Amino acid sequence: MQICANELKTIMKNVLAKHSELKSREGFSLETCRSMIALMDTDGTGKLNLQEFKHLWKKIKQWQLIFKRYDKDNTSSISSFEMRNAVHDAGFHLNKQLYDILAMRYADEHLNIDFDSYICCFVRLEGMFRAFNAFDQDGDGIIKLNVLEWLQLTMYS
Amino acid sequence: MQICANELKTIMKNVLAKHSELKSREGFSLETCRSMIALMDTDGTGKLNLQEFKHLWKKIKQWQLIFKRYDKDNTSSISSFEMRNAVHDAGFHLNKQLYDILAMRYADEHLNIDFDSYICCFVRLEGMFRAFNAFDQDGDGIIKLNVLEWLQLTMYS
Repeated sequence: MQICANELKTIMKNVLAKHSELKSREGFSLETCRSMIALMDTDGTGKLNLQEFKHLWKKIKQWQLIFKRYDKDNTSSISSFEMRNAVHDAGFHLNKQLYDILAMRYADEHLNIDFDSYICCFVRLEGMFRAFNAFDQDGDGIIKLNVLEWLQLTMYS
Repeated sequence: MQICANELKTIMKNVLAKHSELKSREGFSLETCRSMIALMDTDGTGKLNLQEFKHLWKKIKQWQLIFKRYDKDNTSSISSFEMRNAVHDAGFHLNKQLYDILAMRYADEHLNIDFDSYICCFVRLEGMFRAFNAFDQDGDGIIKLNVLEWLQLTMYS
């Protein structure tokens, strides 16, 4: 079994419909599904196998628990301020500038972040941390890239 | 005037409706609009001013002319193979691995790329080339990044 982005979108919509605690009436956007595949596609097929899908689902359930913690009024969105705590709770350690960047990129005009944008942001963050660590083979906290390496790491996310 | 992503989506839909030669009945997705803002937002407001919007519109018209060249059957989508030529025509010089990555990331299960995905891909490519060049201040073709710099460059795209 290999799942492409459009199939993942349909599967996610059906699975989410059965999990009323998961905040997503509409499911996920195609773009979020494409990022999910890029994050989990460890064998470079551009699709997910069953094992990769299971890993993804586990991640989403973890992140959904954090989302629920901050979406106290059940509006299916959290504020940019709550997003900072959520990002921190998920184990990502960022600086103020990065929190501002995430708010600018993923929040709406009222500075709220809906569940789809929230998951899209977390999928990207996880992918970018993973790409950095994979490239930092000597573990000195610095990576050196030429332009093609840079594009290979950033365009599949 | 400052345009946020949701407003940009509405504006683009209205503008595209008046330009029948532009291949997008649905307009652009919110995700593509967010990437457009990230690309053109040179003053770091997270929104576009009129000048930035004009620059963006000029880019889209250029890229649309290239799209039209390959969408000969007027289906509003081009094949992954045609995408390689389109990327090349737009002045991006990539290797085979990168062409494969773009197809994996932006094409549907039939290996076709619709206009929204095409523009989203070009916006990202342009943004990533620009970020690399801005960081490569000594012009030696290599950038060195720590993890926070890496995230600052990649998460706002």
